Amino acid sequence: MYGLIGKMRAQPGQRDALIAILLEGTTAMPGCLSYGIARDKLEADAIWITETWDSQASHKASLSLPSVQAAIAKGRPLIAGFGERFETEPVGGHGMMAKSSSVS
Amino acid sequence: MYGLIGKMRAQPGQRDALIAILLEGTTAMPGCLSYGIARDKLEADAIWITETWDSQASHKASLSLPSVQAAIAKGRPLIAGFGERFETEPVGGHGMMAKSSSVS
Repeated sequence: MYGLIGKMRAQPGQRDALIAILLEGTTAMPGCLSYGIARDKLEADAIWITETWDSQASHKASLSLPSVQAAIAKGRPLIAGFGERFETEPVGGHGMMAKSSSVS
Repeated sequence: MYGLIGKMRAQPGQRDALIAILLEGTTAMPGCLSYGIARDKLEADAIWITETWDSQASHKASLSLPSVQAAIAKGRPLIAGFGERFETEPVGGHGMMAKSSSVS
């Protein structure tokens, strides 16, 4: 498995709008085992994205998917920058990510 | 919801032993929606733990569970230290964490 934990910074006040675009564009990605989005609790415009993939190749391939390309194009103006990024090898755990893709 | 993304460093060569203890001690925690463990790809002894809880109170309460206390006692000698720790508010996503709790 291949994992990514990464931080993205939205333009001021645009965090939830950016989250909605990310959620919309990442629902059907082959090889993606989980995709979670969270607001940073301390930094007002920061977003954490946690991804689990069956392989690094699946992650790479996802970047060419039309839905992902569309999300990148739509989201780009709302992105101020990127923060930490950690590559991982997920090895276990339990539980289900939130099923809903709505921002609440 | 309440989320945590945190890094732990095992004593040299003890990463998988520590992961096994963590997985064993965290299977039945009330309010825990997901618990994922991953090896850092660059740092040989580093572990990432990604947690989703229904509330911060549930997370706090989990630290007093006998199973968690036992895992802490058993794991402590294998822990070299802690790295980054980010508190989050999970807002959406999809997918299931790995069902298996075995280290592979």
